Amino acid sequence: MIDGTRKTIRALRWGMVGGGRGSQIGYIHRSAALRDRYFDLKAGALDLDAARGAAFAADLGVERDRTYPDWRAMIAAEAAREDGIEVITVATPNNTHYEISKAALQAGMHVICEKPLCFTTAEAKELQALAKARGRVIGVTYGYSCYQTIEEARALVASGALGKVRLVNLQFAHGFHSAPVEEENPAIKWRVDPKFAGPSYVLGDLATHPLYLSEVICPDLRIRRLMCARQSFVASRAPLEDNAVTLMEYEGGAFGTVWTSAVNAGAMHSQKVRIVGEKASIEWWDEFPNQLRYEVQGEPPRILDRGMDYLNPAARADDRIGGGHPEGLFESWATMYERFARAIEAANEGRAPDPALRYPDAAAGVAGVRWVENCVRSADAGGIWVDYA
Amino acid sequence: MIDGTRKTIRALRWGMVGGGRGSQIGYIHRSAALRDRYFDLKAGALDLDAARGAAFAADLGVERDRTYPDWRAMIAAEAAREDGIEVITVATPNNTHYEISKAALQAGMHVICEKPLCFTTAEAKELQALAKARGRVIGVTYGYSCYQTIEEARALVASGALGKVRLVNLQFAHGFHSAPVEEENPAIKWRVDPKFAGPSYVLGDLATHPLYLSEVICPDLRIRRLMCARQSFVASRAPLEDNAVTLMEYEGGAFGTVWTSAVNAGAMHSQKVRIVGEKASIEWWDEFPNQLRYEVQGEPPRILDRGMDYLNPAARADDRIGGGHPEGLFESWATMYERFARAIEAANEGRAPDPALRYPDAAAGVAGVRWVENCVRSADAGGIWVDYA
Amino acid sequence: MIDGTRKTIRALRWGMVGGGRGSQIGYIHRSAALRDRYFDLKAGALDLDAARGAAFAADLGVERDRTYPDWRAMIAAEAAREDGIEVITVATPNNTHYEISKAALQAGMHVICEKPLCFTTAEAKELQALAKARGRVIGVTYGYSCYQTIEEARALVASGALGKVRLVNLQFAHGFHSAPVEEENPAIKWRVDPKFAGPSYVLGDLATHPLYLSEVICPDLRIRRLMCARQSFVASRAPLEDNAVTLMEYEGGAFGTVWTSAVNAGAMHSQKVRIVGEKASIEWWDEFPNQLRYEVQGEPPRILDRGMDYLNPAARADDRIGGGHPEGLFESWATMYERFARAIEAANEGRAPDPALRYPDAAAGVAGVRWVENCVRSADAGGIWVDYA
Amino acid sequence: MIDGTRKTIRALRWGMVGGGRGSQIGYIHRSAALRDRYFDLKAGALDLDAARGAAFAADLGVERDRTYPDWRAMIAAEAAREDGIEVITVATPNNTHYEISKAALQAGMHVICEKPLCFTTAEAKELQALAKARGRVIGVTYGYSCYQTIEEARALVASGALGKVRLVNLQFAHGFHSAPVEEENPAIKWRVDPKFAGPSYVLGDLATHPLYLSEVICPDLRIRRLMCARQSFVASRAPLEDNAVTLMEYEGGAFGTVWTSAVNAGAMHSQKVRIVGEKASIEWWDEFPNQLRYEVQGEPPRILDRGMDYLNPAARADDRIGGGHPEGLFESWATMYERFARAIEAANEGRAPDPALRYPDAAAGVAGVRWVENCVRSADAGGIWVDYA
Repeated sequence: MIDGTRKTIRALRWGMVGGGRGSQIGYIHRSAALRDRYFDLKAGALDLDAARGAAFAADLGVERDRTYPDWRAMIAAEAAREDGIEVITVATPNNTHYEISKAALQAGMHVICEKPLCFTTAEAKELQALAKARGRVIGVTYGYSCYQTIEEARALVASGALGKVRLVNLQFAHGFHSAPVEEENPAIKWRVDPKFAGPSYVLGDLATHPLYLSEVICPDLRIRRLMCARQSFVASRAPLEDNAVTLMEYEGGAFGTVWTSAVNAGAMHSQKVRIVGEKASIEWWDEFPNQLRYEVQGEPPRILDRGMDYLNPAARADDRIGGGHPEGLFESWATMYERFARAIEAANEGRAPDPALRYPDAAAGVAGVRWVENCVRSADAGGIWVDYA
Repeated sequence: MIDGTRKTIRALRWGMVGGGRGSQIGYIHRSAALRDRYFDLKAGALDLDAARGAAFAADLGVERDRTYPDWRAMIAAEAAREDGIEVITVATPNNTHYEISKAALQAGMHVICEKPLCFTTAEAKELQALAKARGRVIGVTYGYSCYQTIEEARALVASGALGKVRLVNLQFAHGFHSAPVEEENPAIKWRVDPKFAGPSYVLGDLATHPLYLSEVICPDLRIRRLMCARQSFVASRAPLEDNAVTLMEYEGGAFGTVWTSAVNAGAMHSQKVRIVGEKASIEWWDEFPNQLRYEVQGEPPRILDRGMDYLNPAARADDRIGGGHPEGLFESWATMYERFARAIEAANEGRAPDPALRYPDAAAGVAGVRWVENCVRSADAGGIWVDYA
Repeated sequence: MIDGTRKTIRALRWGMVGGGRGSQIGYIHRSAALRDRYFDLKAGALDLDAARGAAFAADLGVERDRTYPDWRAMIAAEAAREDGIEVITVATPNNTHYEISKAALQAGMHVICEKPLCFTTAEAKELQALAKARGRVIGVTYGYSCYQTIEEARALVASGALGKVRLVNLQFAHGFHSAPVEEENPAIKWRVDPKFAGPSYVLGDLATHPLYLSEVICPDLRIRRLMCARQSFVASRAPLEDNAVTLMEYEGGAFGTVWTSAVNAGAMHSQKVRIVGEKASIEWWDEFPNQLRYEVQGEPPRILDRGMDYLNPAARADDRIGGGHPEGLFESWATMYERFARAIEAANEGRAPDPALRYPDAAAGVAGVRWVENCVRSADAGGIWVDYA
Repeated sequence: MIDGTRKTIRALRWGMVGGGRGSQIGYIHRSAALRDRYFDLKAGALDLDAARGAAFAADLGVERDRTYPDWRAMIAAEAAREDGIEVITVATPNNTHYEISKAALQAGMHVICEKPLCFTTAEAKELQALAKARGRVIGVTYGYSCYQTIEEARALVASGALGKVRLVNLQFAHGFHSAPVEEENPAIKWRVDPKFAGPSYVLGDLATHPLYLSEVICPDLRIRRLMCARQSFVASRAPLEDNAVTLMEYEGGAFGTVWTSAVNAGAMHSQKVRIVGEKASIEWWDEFPNQLRYEVQGEPPRILDRGMDYLNPAARADDRIGGGHPEGLFESWATMYERFARAIEAANEGRAPDPALRYPDAAAGVAGVRWVENCVRSADAGGIWVDYA
């Protein structure tokens, strides 16, 4: 149960790149980090427009001399201060993640980075290795992954309630970009430009979310090979896809599918995860994250509700308000940031974190980039099966 | 609106093969055929056990001398009678469909056959040609296809409400055979034996249902190529699959997916059809067939209900009881049989049927067999893309 | 399981008053009665317009000389025939139910009557007594009462799974008459005219349906007192109500509420029954009759599906097509008519019916009329508590 | 849109009574108040156990000398400080609300109080008058009332989309106290003891929530008379009720019902509000607060989603993260606290607040207490209609 009691000794000195005024993604980072005083916002380079960024930072309580025109200035100056920031959040367009994260790590900072961590597996592994060498933490904001219902799903699979996992059905398919909305909305435009978005649009932007959830819920699954077909229904988006289907064969015989789309007209998120085992299935839907459907073959399906005593302890641990009351995305993010803080505290103290501490880490960042890379390789070869590289 | 007024001049003289005592599929055929007096049950070879079949036929009101020990006897004797049956329903295991149907057509009878019509496209086309040559009707019991909500879906697509169709997402994935239940249940056993079931299990048994629905709703789509991956999670079922995923590219750029399974543990049918267009989507679920979800991008989703005035005329035509009252599978089947009767009456009179009369006909039977054949060809080659043959 | 095997020896000779061409309620009576050959339609006085009635009867296969211009003629002539009808269905406006039923009983016929059976408890008891004296059956078409999910609800309560029943929450509240639609639709006009409709509109037309379901599910409950508030939101309907709420105290402490409405704008039926016990609740919704929600306190709610092995035997007995396939209102009606036939057969043979045979009988008819009478008495006194008379 | 930009000039100096370690209600107050830096937690009397309270306050960052053993000490000391708290949150058992609020107002503090504000209308009006005389704000934490979907509901009614409101159907009926759980759980025990809970249990604890929502959505409705029946299904709770139904007649002819329960076995909250107008209805369910059902008679129902462009501006104003992402109860509370802060700032500056600023204020507090008082008066007189006093 969470009642605001902090599980770490002190708040971490925190800085932020991106997430300026009007950015909702910036807001969710701050809401999560500041929620239970795990982080103190001490520095910021919040906006490409330095004056606007400075004004907003002031509103947020950042001291004037720790507001920076850009991330290079911030990392340099903060690294030089005795009381400089310990950890930096990177909430900028995809093409900048790699270099900012690398610079921060080299400056001895922990890094919390929007996904994708970077564009290539090689880069991702480089960052992972760099973090390891420096004893620093990388957190990647797979923000759906700390829902209590995801913990319950993971616990159910671990308990053997499903039997051996056979099928992994994933989707994240909205309809908001059915029309070429990017033509009039610069906030979307960069997402369909390979220069800023990288080698994919919806595969990297959406599909890696449920993919990571499947890794959390079924940690033993290993992809053996996959095939991917991707399409650009709004033709001007090519070579980036706005719809894709990936099939996956796992070691040991399980089979997976991933449907991701930005042209699923009329749909909201429809991010869903269904795990099918020999004996039972679980199904999760991000738009209704307080419920988890649990279906045992031969029995009536059950609707599990967050916050209830019948859940596994891991699923109850992060309850913030009793069952029946809806929690939402902000709570999942806040729990994620709490876990980042605990991992960082352990690293700061030179000790291994609690083995039960699970969060989207450098390995998760590598896994996402790697998966997209394999998908693109398959798709660009005509939708053929490729061994998982 | 249907109030029991028959749209044909008289009831057709009808015989049945299979569907003996205790068969629910036999019951739904009879309920549908007899519902509004379009058919009169005049003859039957209902059971492999002739005595049991005769007793049941007597219960059903069939005259003693028109109860037959097997279909060969029935076709021979009935064909020889002046008042012999005009139309025969074939509700036997899959491996017998072809020869019974062929014999009946050759004897001048119309044929209503369970799906699959047969095992190969060549056979299917042979039956189709034979029916055409003799001026006889073949109906294939894709029994989900005459729901009013399916008519509404078809009308919405035809009206352009969705814009150009981009995605066709199909599934029929139950969990009833998650365990090797066939070991103790002979009624299931034949379904996983290639000798009786043909070249596939769930692809032919389940997936062709939503596939046909997609053909009804989007009649202009043509598959260009497809790829299929199939698995036998209960190993003893190999080479027949108990789970499969098929991807389809259509002429003109639309993309389709089909998931079918008998090992989707805990699920009931979950037969769903989602059609995504440029502007809107529709979604249909066979377990809740009185509703159709209609989602226009940028507007709140709407839940359309059967029987309501706001529907298209084609969807209102077959209303049997006002909106709000749930109709079910028996009504879809009854409407299908009504359409069979109208087509048969037209054939009997040597005229073309009403061009608006839509029913699962010989072409639908060919299409299903062909699709399975292509899927199996792809799957057996390792899940590669194959041009649609 | 129902496969069409008739549970009675022979079909009953049946006649019908009302339910002419275009009547959907007439159609559901016929679909139900004829479904599995429990009844043979031998005579009819189907329409106030005798010629139209005769033409429709001919379409339905009634012999010309057994088509009658009115019910008096039919009862007289059929009673005089050796092969005259044994049972009559009354599907006419409410104000005629009493006299037709009485005349039919006096002529020695069994009666199946639309609800309400009549307008006063005194009349209802008179009919009940008359039927008893003559050894005839009265069936009242509470057509929702033979759903398999209702059987399951009844079995769950009987099993003690809910513990002692505390609350009975009933509603049947549609929105189809939010506007004064009767001004232009004569088929609705009589329902809001006390001369034809009796002392109430929605209380008698709608609320008695879920009320009867509650009697079926909780046969031990006895109303001790009630209070009712009724309103005429479309003023021209006064004194008949188009919305009403009734509160009920039962012997032993249980408490009930009934909301009924024809002005619940935008709603379809929303006929729902929720029974709350000490330990668990069940909830049923007529628009989704294949599901029953079962909620044990402290456990996740379960969605029970019709046709499944985990249900009680009583709920499985009337399965017509396996679980997952949706049945609808026509099946509930068909099962009701089957039970009428079995009760009539027993009466014809002078024996008591199977004690397990449950159907909406004369007592159900009395109960409904009585309840409305009490509601109206309370409402017309200003919504005060009245002892249940 | 909310991105963390504070709408007030500065954070308010804030203190808290109650809400100690392990209290989730204390946590939601703090999460809401601190969310976007509208409040600074400067003082606390968090626990009856002074040492435990002091330790927790220290964890929360309250300075040692501003941690108090009880509220009297806190109000006295803080009122004497130049930098003393300006506003106090009262999160203690019901029986203390009146005296703490009164003392705080007399000390010149603004008050944010858990509901019920007090036990009698007379007391409530006294507090309201006191606040007015001192120019102080009273906020009452009807924490469901600042959901965006509630704003949309209010805007739809105001726009005339529903036509004249006819019916108000309210419920808040959980099952968590089906058994006498208070026997072993002191945190529940006080709720069923009149000394601490006041004259009612579920009427005051639960029903006033949807009641206030109905006041927000339909601000023009005035109750003319009501009747209430209440029951104690767990007998030891008498005279306090664990279930109650209230009927309400409004001026102008609208009719309302309220069902509230703690013995609705198996149910979560089932807090629902349905407003029925001449032309359309809206329905809201607190467990799924991101959706609002909007049903226009004669059209298919629509599911409105939070955060979407098709909503009214008032409903979009408080969006924190785009549509599709679930917000939850914490966001509704945070918005409520933001509005408290804005009202307090206006009061501090001696100006009228923005006329569009809507929050649960002293009048809301009075309204809730008054409603319970009327319900209890009716119930204790045997469930009779009473003019609304």
